[in-house]
Amino acid sequence: MLTKADKTRQFIIEQAAPIFNRKGFAGTSMSDILEATGLAKGGLYGNFGSKEEIAREAFKYSFEKAYGGVVLAVGAKESPFEKLMALCDYYKDYTKNSPVDGGCPILNFSIEVDDTMPRLKKDVKVAIERQLHDLYRVIEKGKRLGEIRKDVNSEKYASLIYAHIEGAIFLAKALDDHKKLNQSLEFLKSMIVTEMKEGSHGKHGHHGRD
Amino acid sequence: MLTKADKTRQFIIEQAAPIFNRKGFAGTSMSDILEATGLAKGGLYGNFGSKEEIAREAFKYSFEKAYGGVVLAVGAKESPFEKLMALCDYYKDYTKNSPVDGGCPILNFSIEVDDTMPRLKKDVKVAIERQLHDLYRVIEKGKRLGEIRKDVNSEKYASLIYAHIEGAIFLAKALDDHKKLNQSLEFLKSMIVTEMKEGSHGKHGHHGRD
Repeated sequence: MLTKADKTRQFIIEQAAPIFNRKGFAGTSMSDILEATGLAKGGLYGNFGSKEEIAREAFKYSFEKAYGGVVLAVGAKESPFEKLMALCDYYKDYTKNSPVDGGCPILNFSIEVDDTMPRLKKDVKVAIERQLHDLYRVIEKGKRLGEIRKDVNSEKYASLIYAHIEGAIFLAKALDDHKKLNQSLEFLKSMIVTEMKEGSHGKHGHHGRD
Repeated sequence: MLTKADKTRQFIIEQAAPIFNRKGFAGTSMSDILEATGLAKGGLYGNFGSKEEIAREAFKYSFEKAYGGVVLAVGAKESPFEKLMALCDYYKDYTKNSPVDGGCPILNFSIEVDDTMPRLKKDVKVAIERQLHDLYRVIEKGKRLGEIRKDVNSEKYASLIYAHIEGAIFLAKALDDHKKLNQSLEFLKSMIVTEMKEGSHGKHGHHGRD
């Protein structure tokens, strides 16, 4: 059972998460968090030793919330091939309605902390590696079940899909042009069908075998 | 001719640019800039009205410096197809040796300011649009010269290439894994050869015509 202290801690994290995600680590002040929570200074510092400690928990919370939606959408499909399609479909209009205010927490935290905050950078890295590994496992399972070509390099394609989705989220948001995200997702689906799916031509049609 | 005041202004911009690029807008303080320039407060505030004003000039400076390298590499090739290849090759190992300390200024500024600073967001947007338009023009010229397939949607492919490169830079940097950037670049080159080049199969081999 959650104690009262646990509940306060959780409340602080939930209130702080969207602020960090929108304004960044350096852009978020303790006053912002005090204001959002309505707590007195003592209530905040009694639960967390530093802004970094809140930011780390806030990142984890935002990441779980955002990634939870992906896991649900992908988990609803049985077939690994369909899981890959569902992943791309999940991100449709993501920049219009992202699950955490401020957009993709991975992108937001990563870019800011990569040169300056090693602990937060590590947290983000662990989160990205988990997503890449999940994607890798879907592709590997697709190979075992005969849905994905055996000659597809699972690690490489997991990274390619991941990099492209994140880049497209970034671009669509920077330009306020959601179409750019959606056309990237259609491109990826088409790429999965024609390069990865069993029976397809394979890498860019080089190894056509029909 | 540059006046002494112009020179001081330029000196401040050049010193501030890598700091903003590494630490972000909110993470950079006026004290950081005072320290880097060795100027007294009066010297700094006499030249710039606000931190935002310095940041906007610093972004422009970092962007021109970073993009200057691309323009040079791409401009060295005559053929539009070769220009696209040179673009991909340019970014090889970019996360290891980026022209501006802290990595891609577009990515760094954009992610931080998108929710909070409309003027800086606009500056970044203009810079991205310029790059996309340059890429669009290369593809269009390739179509006119018969190097690129006529049915390639230039605007769409410019965005796809751009989004993927930025996403790969982000991923490689977040994971400290430069290989991920380079494999994305190889993927893009292969995609350009097999989907865009005149005489290729076209979009993912769907319209094969050899």
